[in-house]
Amino acid sequence: MQPPPRASCVTMPLDLALIRAAHDRIRPHIHRTPVLTSERLDEACGGRLFFKCENFQKVGAFKARGAANAVFSLDDTTAQRGVATHSSGNHAAALARAARLRGITAHIVMPSNSSKAKVRAVEGYGGRLTFCEPTQAARESTCARIIAETGATLVHPFENEAVMAGQGTAAIELIEDARDLDLLLCPVGGGGLLAGTAIAAKALRPGIRVIATEPAEAADTARSFAAGHIIPLTKTTTIADGLRTTIGAPNFAIVQQHVDAVVTVSEEAIIAAMRLIWETLKIVIEPSAAVPYAAILEQKIDIAGHRAGLILTGGNVDLDALPWVGKA
Amino acid sequence: MQPPPRASCVTMPLDLALIRAAHDRIRPHIHRTPVLTSERLDEACGGRLFFKCENFQKVGAFKARGAANAVFSLDDTTAQRGVATHSSGNHAAALARAARLRGITAHIVMPSNSSKAKVRAVEGYGGRLTFCEPTQAARESTCARIIAETGATLVHPFENEAVMAGQGTAAIELIEDARDLDLLLCPVGGGGLLAGTAIAAKALRPGIRVIATEPAEAADTARSFAAGHIIPLTKTTTIADGLRTTIGAPNFAIVQQHVDAVVTVSEEAIIAAMRLIWETLKIVIEPSAAVPYAAILEQKIDIAGHRAGLILTGGNVDLDALPWVGKA
Repeated sequence: MQPPPRASCVTMPLDLALIRAAHDRIRPHIHRTPVLTSERLDEACGGRLFFKCENFQKVGAFKARGAANAVFSLDDTTAQRGVATHSSGNHAAALARAARLRGITAHIVMPSNSSKAKVRAVEGYGGRLTFCEPTQAARESTCARIIAETGATLVHPFENEAVMAGQGTAAIELIEDARDLDLLLCPVGGGGLLAGTAIAAKALRPGIRVIATEPAEAADTARSFAAGHIIPLTKTTTIADGLRTTIGAPNFAIVQQHVDAVVTVSEEAIIAAMRLIWETLKIVIEPSAAVPYAAILEQKIDIAGHRAGLILTGGNVDLDALPWVGKA
Repeated sequence: MQPPPRASCVTMPLDLALIRAAHDRIRPHIHRTPVLTSERLDEACGGRLFFKCENFQKVGAFKARGAANAVFSLDDTTAQRGVATHSSGNHAAALARAARLRGITAHIVMPSNSSKAKVRAVEGYGGRLTFCEPTQAARESTCARIIAETGATLVHPFENEAVMAGQGTAAIELIEDARDLDLLLCPVGGGGLLAGTAIAAKALRPGIRVIATEPAEAADTARSFAAGHIIPLTKTTTIADGLRTTIGAPNFAIVQQHVDAVVTVSEEAIIAAMRLIWETLKIVIEPSAAVPYAAILEQKIDIAGHRAGLILTGGNVDLDALPWVGKA
């Protein structure tokens, strides 16, 4: 006798067709962001670098893609009951925005110590906020209660196939615009972007190398990749605040299959990379977005003679607390 | 008996044909910079704003246009004797770059107290540096001596028709890309950009209003425009360091004829505008570039219902000395 199918088996495995369908679905709701290049940065590393500017994306981060795909994938009856998530970051704002575009409610659970800027962003998009104690258990139980009461659909920030498919659309655009890429560099936190990116990239260009980049101070994916099973992140204070998350289980399964390497970078390299990109490309990116270029600065990746795409994941940064200000 | 023709009468008056010729001449050497928009900034002012991103231009400022046009306008014999200027800002780097592209020497006179960053920029483009005492008289006499010794051609940062024609090419692109503009907002320092912009804009769209924007703390153009003759700038410490210059005589003549109004803005508005553009558009601009948007923030311009182009002039800023850091 066969075991009953698990819920996760109901959906199709993530593949290029799903990511292309996501692209068609969300195209009216997102920017096709530009790809920037710099002769100066190319000369410095000996390769050719193509920066995919998701800092210019709606809500200032790639998260707009996955949230829009998740919300617009729902059938009408399900959608009318709303969506819910617990997140204090860009995903919360992105989900609130996507829900407003569809005319449904987004229930957002945020820890009571969330920054005012993050609360304002969610409110600005019309999200229905519930505050809870700043613990993972409180976030999950509060979110579960709201879902039980409302019938809202949980849209997890990364352990969700529609979210992963949406995030993978940035790689399709980058590969179309940059052409003939040998390498694709992507930050990894929960692994939503990385999973979608790796599947899209390997399907479009089987010879491409997909390299995950991660702060050494939040190196759960690097350790898990080496061990062959997930080793959860303990407390971290990395400046790359978007990457302070243990990789999700479905995400890790995809990473094991489709990612070529995971490299880690120092905090100093993240700050130096962030500053160099601001100065040279004249764009504002957040620390997490600087992690792939930090790997080039620290010579963790053999870049000479190669064409490398780098996903600049977002531009939401506190201009009052820049990491190089007040330091020697 | 007629008086002998003055040197300035030898050239043709600046017109759209000269600016179009400049555009054809410099196109291989400059970026066609993007025009950015923001729903959020539009909602805040009730108009539609089109930001011409010259911060993404070569050398990080529109100055690359005028310098390239001046250098590539020279006949071969004249060019071989080199070019010269006295400038401590973006024009010096732009002239050094243009000269290197043509394979000729750029003699750059800089005051001995110039910042290391500015000296490095000129050196990086292969400019031949001469330092002098930090006075206007020393700059001019040192530059005159070099010109006498070498036969180099002076390329003044703004009192030069080829420079003005080159700067005017940004307005052609902006008007093409943004379409149906009612207003064009431009900062004014020496008036090279403003002169080229006003002539291009009025020729392409006779009904457009061209509005010069200036720091109240360096309001020589506003005062001169009201008085009908140039009233030189006295000492200024405006944060908009690119605009600490008295408008040039040929520039002022064009401004009197083709500019509709000159408005001034406070230092506080410049800083607020700069920060808001960084946060919202996710781009790095220098204080001078924020002056047109500061005029909108201070409601100096009736923007509701209008389509306004704003030239973001440059992005060369000291990331260690941001104006909002360390302030209450």
